[in-house]
Amino acid sequence: MTDRIVLAYSGGLDTSVAIGWIAEATGAEVIAVAVDVGQGGESLETIRQRALDCGAVEAYIADARDEFAAEYCMPALKANALYMDAYPLVSALSRPVIVKHLVAAAREFGATTVSHGCTGKGNDQVRFEVGIQTLGPDLKCIAPVRDLALTRDKAIAYAEEKNLPIVTTKKNPFSIDQNVWGRAVETGFLEDIWNGPTKDVYDYTASPDFPPVADEVIITFEQGIPVALDGDPVTPLEAIQQLNHRAGAQGIGRIDIVEDRLVGIKSREVYEAPGAMALIAAHKELENVTVEREQARFKKIVGQRWTELVYDGQWFSPLKRSLDTFIEDTQKYVSGDIRMEMHGGRATVTGRRSNSSLYDFNLATYDTGDAFDQSSARGFIDIFGLSSKVASERDERVAGSK
Amino acid sequence: MTDRIVLAYSGGLDTSVAIGWIAEATGAEVIAVAVDVGQGGESLETIRQRALDCGAVEAYIADARDEFAAEYCMPALKANALYMDAYPLVSALSRPVIVKHLVAAAREFGATTVSHGCTGKGNDQVRFEVGIQTLGPDLKCIAPVRDLALTRDKAIAYAEEKNLPIVTTKKNPFSIDQNVWGRAVETGFLEDIWNGPTKDVYDYTASPDFPPVADEVIITFEQGIPVALDGDPVTPLEAIQQLNHRAGAQGIGRIDIVEDRLVGIKSREVYEAPGAMALIAAHKELENVTVEREQARFKKIVGQRWTELVYDGQWFSPLKRSLDTFIEDTQKYVSGDIRMEMHGGRATVTGRRSNSSLYDFNLATYDTGDAFDQSSARGFIDIFGLSSKVASERDERVAGSK
Amino acid sequence: MTDRIVLAYSGGLDTSVAIGWIAEATGAEVIAVAVDVGQGGESLETIRQRALDCGAVEAYIADARDEFAAEYCMPALKANALYMDAYPLVSALSRPVIVKHLVAAAREFGATTVSHGCTGKGNDQVRFEVGIQTLGPDLKCIAPVRDLALTRDKAIAYAEEKNLPIVTTKKNPFSIDQNVWGRAVETGFLEDIWNGPTKDVYDYTASPDFPPVADEVIITFEQGIPVALDGDPVTPLEAIQQLNHRAGAQGIGRIDIVEDRLVGIKSREVYEAPGAMALIAAHKELENVTVEREQARFKKIVGQRWTELVYDGQWFSPLKRSLDTFIEDTQKYVSGDIRMEMHGGRATVTGRRSNSSLYDFNLATYDTGDAFDQSSARGFIDIFGLSSKVASERDERVAGSK
Amino acid sequence: MTDRIVLAYSGGLDTSVAIGWIAEATGAEVIAVAVDVGQGGESLETIRQRALDCGAVEAYIADARDEFAAEYCMPALKANALYMDAYPLVSALSRPVIVKHLVAAAREFGATTVSHGCTGKGNDQVRFEVGIQTLGPDLKCIAPVRDLALTRDKAIAYAEEKNLPIVTTKKNPFSIDQNVWGRAVETGFLEDIWNGPTKDVYDYTASPDFPPVADEVIITFEQGIPVALDGDPVTPLEAIQQLNHRAGAQGIGRIDIVEDRLVGIKSREVYEAPGAMALIAAHKELENVTVEREQARFKKIVGQRWTELVYDGQWFSPLKRSLDTFIEDTQKYVSGDIRMEMHGGRATVTGRRSNSSLYDFNLATYDTGDAFDQSSARGFIDIFGLSSKVASERDERVAGSK
Repeated sequence: MTDRIVLAYSGGLDTSVAIGWIAEATGAEVIAVAVDVGQGGESLETIRQRALDCGAVEAYIADARDEFAAEYCMPALKANALYMDAYPLVSALSRPVIVKHLVAAAREFGATTVSHGCTGKGNDQVRFEVGIQTLGPDLKCIAPVRDLALTRDKAIAYAEEKNLPIVTTKKNPFSIDQNVWGRAVETGFLEDIWNGPTKDVYDYTASPDFPPVADEVIITFEQGIPVALDGDPVTPLEAIQQLNHRAGAQGIGRIDIVEDRLVGIKSREVYEAPGAMALIAAHKELENVTVEREQARFKKIVGQRWTELVYDGQWFSPLKRSLDTFIEDTQKYVSGDIRMEMHGGRATVTGRRSNSSLYDFNLATYDTGDAFDQSSARGFIDIFGLSSKVASERDERVAGSK
Repeated sequence: MTDRIVLAYSGGLDTSVAIGWIAEATGAEVIAVAVDVGQGGESLETIRQRALDCGAVEAYIADARDEFAAEYCMPALKANALYMDAYPLVSALSRPVIVKHLVAAAREFGATTVSHGCTGKGNDQVRFEVGIQTLGPDLKCIAPVRDLALTRDKAIAYAEEKNLPIVTTKKNPFSIDQNVWGRAVETGFLEDIWNGPTKDVYDYTASPDFPPVADEVIITFEQGIPVALDGDPVTPLEAIQQLNHRAGAQGIGRIDIVEDRLVGIKSREVYEAPGAMALIAAHKELENVTVEREQARFKKIVGQRWTELVYDGQWFSPLKRSLDTFIEDTQKYVSGDIRMEMHGGRATVTGRRSNSSLYDFNLATYDTGDAFDQSSARGFIDIFGLSSKVASERDERVAGSK
Repeated sequence: MTDRIVLAYSGGLDTSVAIGWIAEATGAEVIAVAVDVGQGGESLETIRQRALDCGAVEAYIADARDEFAAEYCMPALKANALYMDAYPLVSALSRPVIVKHLVAAAREFGATTVSHGCTGKGNDQVRFEVGIQTLGPDLKCIAPVRDLALTRDKAIAYAEEKNLPIVTTKKNPFSIDQNVWGRAVETGFLEDIWNGPTKDVYDYTASPDFPPVADEVIITFEQGIPVALDGDPVTPLEAIQQLNHRAGAQGIGRIDIVEDRLVGIKSREVYEAPGAMALIAAHKELENVTVEREQARFKKIVGQRWTELVYDGQWFSPLKRSLDTFIEDTQKYVSGDIRMEMHGGRATVTGRRSNSSLYDFNLATYDTGDAFDQSSARGFIDIFGLSSKVASERDERVAGSK
Repeated sequence: MTDRIVLAYSGGLDTSVAIGWIAEATGAEVIAVAVDVGQGGESLETIRQRALDCGAVEAYIADARDEFAAEYCMPALKANALYMDAYPLVSALSRPVIVKHLVAAAREFGATTVSHGCTGKGNDQVRFEVGIQTLGPDLKCIAPVRDLALTRDKAIAYAEEKNLPIVTTKKNPFSIDQNVWGRAVETGFLEDIWNGPTKDVYDYTASPDFPPVADEVIITFEQGIPVALDGDPVTPLEAIQQLNHRAGAQGIGRIDIVEDRLVGIKSREVYEAPGAMALIAAHKELENVTVEREQARFKKIVGQRWTELVYDGQWFSPLKRSLDTFIEDTQKYVSGDIRMEMHGGRATVTGRRSNSSLYDFNLATYDTGDAFDQSSARGFIDIFGLSSKVASERDERVAGSK
């Protein structure tokens, strides 16, 4: 029986060419897999037809938008996941859900190998292949750009020669990956890290410099998940989509950093994630109100490790799963409303209220009604500072004896 | 000989009254100590005279602005110190420098006790007293508000009765602490955490909603310290002052959070720190360019612990000192220029350049000249993902055998 | 109605006297609560009767040995909890289970206050009172030794004067706390930390210097819990008890350290925990076989924090609960057999086998059958070392340009 | 000019054959480099001559024993470095010092490539090559066993065919690496992890089951480094050597674990490290006496990361260097005497004394002279437990409202 290879298919030039390129190089049949994670653009049906027209023996399509929002973006929100304090893991989150469908398709169509369009110097190849190794330890991986020398020039020549139903442009200045959680842009111009981004880099966000009037939103959370906007119930997907629209109009969520890739190099990355950044800002402040101090302090360490693991392609790893149980437990009381003003690139929390608040007006107030027993303070300070005091006396004693 | 007490003196109503109040309650002589950490307002000489007029037997004044900027704010910058990802430790940084001068004054004037104007439910009493315990283990502490029942009403009555040279107002709605690194505001209105801040809360920053034209600045760092703005050499103090002015005009650095106090309660805090927030944003991005990945990842954990310790009043503790050596070592190559656009509440890095950069264009580029050996990737992925793969095989094996 | 106070009652001199002492000092009725956590000694019924004879209006007794072993010792085993790498939290584990029964008794008998026999400079007062604050935020605490000046001399005089049914000895050189998980000893002689322990310090362990013949045991674990010894099913309590006996005969589990107390001082502590130490050694090695590397590395950090929290009396805190969920998740596959030789103070693992092992003979072997693809190594090394290599090139470049 | 390759040369069969094997495979000249790190066996001069006899064009030998002890073992001691709480990094420590000499030899003799005898599935290849990449980023690496198919059978055949001056044995059941810090043994028999070690596995240690009379030693430390044994001054090398002898005679320092290799597999390892384990036990207890609590708690996290980095071959990485500065700072007061009884496999600390002790008898004692103010405790407990108490009240409130 002929070998079968499942290919992560976007509908674009490179993966359209890859269908035939892989088949010719390996003699295998190619099954195209297209997964909608909210990247917009053409319909899944259009993409499915193009895959078949380009020579795929089968085409598997999946609308994974709700799954992606609920099972991948929401855990990132609960973790307040910002790699290097900045990047909300846009592509890093979509890879595992695509992997899940690639492996499902491989099982359904009897494939032995999984293929993707990544290069050999990025993070995404690792995320795809480590994910596939983990979910399907028996599956092999092949990356035509990296392993079969499929350069862009060759792709254009191949598409024209074979008359593939796909537009070929000599030079696309941007390399883009997008989904409902955000959008990543790389471009040669930005490889000079002294250059600032130009306007044409952005698509999810308007300029924050000339914003419309301020937009106030009330986000209601239940156990760390947004469940209503301005009182109207929303699914996780709807919450992200609506905030992408509203926060994007205010220029919120533009990110521009030099980033540490897993493969050991630093690269310049520009991202847009208006909904994600607004949600994270709101979620963090609701945690400030509802999560106990020591739990919050340790959760930062857990969240950092979670973020590094997901960035590094370890979504399906045992440690990631154990960290999830910790984070999930911290979200038990992260419920309530956050009022946020979105304006001119800023998402500013202006109010918070919660039935599970740990803010106690009577303990906090300096006015009448103060329930805090100030006489406890002296004893606390004496003992809290004692080990430092003893160390200081020792330091002086040792210095004095020299 | 009469006992002597050193008092941290601000020149305001409460500490002016405290001079006589302490003397009466204890029979001791009071020495007023005023330290300029860039809080603005009256001159040290005016304050010195008022202390004497209010009954102090001596008055010790110190212009600690450069010392505070160089030895307290700069370490916080190197640590990117933001408590709860938000608060740049404004008051927490000034307490130890004031403590240092209080202890110096106690030694100079032969005092046995140190006094401060803090209440019994805040962080500052801990910072003062743990600091004093550590620098002067033999010194005692007394806090008239907490220990001698000096309420505001009593202070006003006392000032009027004694005809002290100080303005008394029945009700000041704001409780303010400020220095060159920032400004902290508490007020009864904000104790309802659903209320947003009103305009009169702010003083260091203009509204970000109606900004002047964008202001581009180039900040030059040497080993983590700003040394020039737009090419003009600056001291740490000047860097903070000038950026307070320029970033403040753009409404940068407003912070509004529910915060975990050391004494176990949550409180609502509003801060302004335009210069600090602009410097931290610039410094973090220069670190992204010049600090190696694993060093950067662990530095976040060190920075978090450093920040918690300083917030918790442990400036002079042994652990804080050891963390300093770690952070200092990471700053060795954090040198170069950051170009930043300040506009409408946003401090956005748009360019970075450094002779000690770890960004390698030839490794990062996707254009010709790419020096990255993509053939290494497969081996890396196989081994990097191996332990998760083996675990996944085990999980399936165990699940299958049930 | 008369106020009621629940007292943690041991049956010994101090708490027997405390019944009347508290009643006289406060006018309240005292309810004695005795909890069996495997400390041995008199029967609960004997203790109950003595409490009543000493003036308690009610006596509540609970055989909490199985509860203590299963719900307190087993989580410590899963965490490999050794404070300062040495102390298996003997007393720190028993305090929360006693607190649970104290609060239950307070509810049952309508008490408003809880009392315990601790001094004001140890950890146990904190563990009792923080536990009580948390489980019963409305309950007050009182400690007669600390708060009502009940010294040992006064206790002896009171017992003799009131003719209490309890033996009084002028001077007991040892202060002992013991339960099934171990035994803690303090004594004046050991307060000189240059002195070594004398033989009479020990009770759970024979001398390791003259051991009987080696004792080999096979411990079977299910998800981190011992379920059989040498093939015979055991409960957690039985596992600890039997290993206390067998490991104790070999002199295993003697501990002698200078320890950091929560109250800021260092103290000298001697412990015996033969069963606990043997179980922890076995459990750690079974984890080595069944837990994935990154999960194991992070679990050490989690285990350290768990141990500090429990030592510090935070058993019922939110963070402790969240850490539990992490640890629990890591134990899913910690099942299998550990063969251990116990001899002369040493508990040495000599064999391990598990159906959920991650040890893969075919990957590990250097013999024929080796399934590890060595050709992956070069690529792995190139990328794994790349960020350090780039940093090193930078360091040389910067050094050279000076 | 002919290419030159530097080879890490042990004097044994494999690397003796490698000299010719590499030369034939690459056409390059081979320079043998032998480094004495205390592994014992033949003299450096004998080894040098054999290298030349086997075809090396040059032979570079270095007695690095003092350097290894002082600059590699002592930092590990300061870090209390035990990988997985068990393995004192024996081989992981020697690789970087050998790398340093390999790179020095490459510079001296104009070599472009460095070679070592490791396989492709162990940690040591990574330690060698990442080290070489870092110290000599321009140098290439080659491993004949991994890259040039030099199996043991081929090595024996080659040695016999070329009549090399080296003993060939068909089958050596043990794979051994040793240096002054310890000894590592792998053998096929132990690849079955249910098998216990046999007696012939051990060389540095006598059986702990039949020990000579107990041996008491007093180890004097200065800033974390052993400087005298029983009052006689020693260098670091002498301290390790003498304790290897004395602790080895008592059977101390045998280790048997399943270990997580960097390359993603678990392997069974047996080690002996009598001197190292005795020194670490003594050093940890002296730290207990002289290091402040919070510093000690965070140092455990730093020490764990340091240990992982060194195990993972990152000795020369930026993070390792920064962690060193932290650890160094914590050792400032780790000076004093530890009395230790070594007997029957156990190294038991029985006494400690230090001029820089933080143990304060007057704070710790329960006898007369107690300087601890017990009245501080209530205030401390109230505030220390407040955030958990508030959380508990919230939990009950939320539960009650459902």
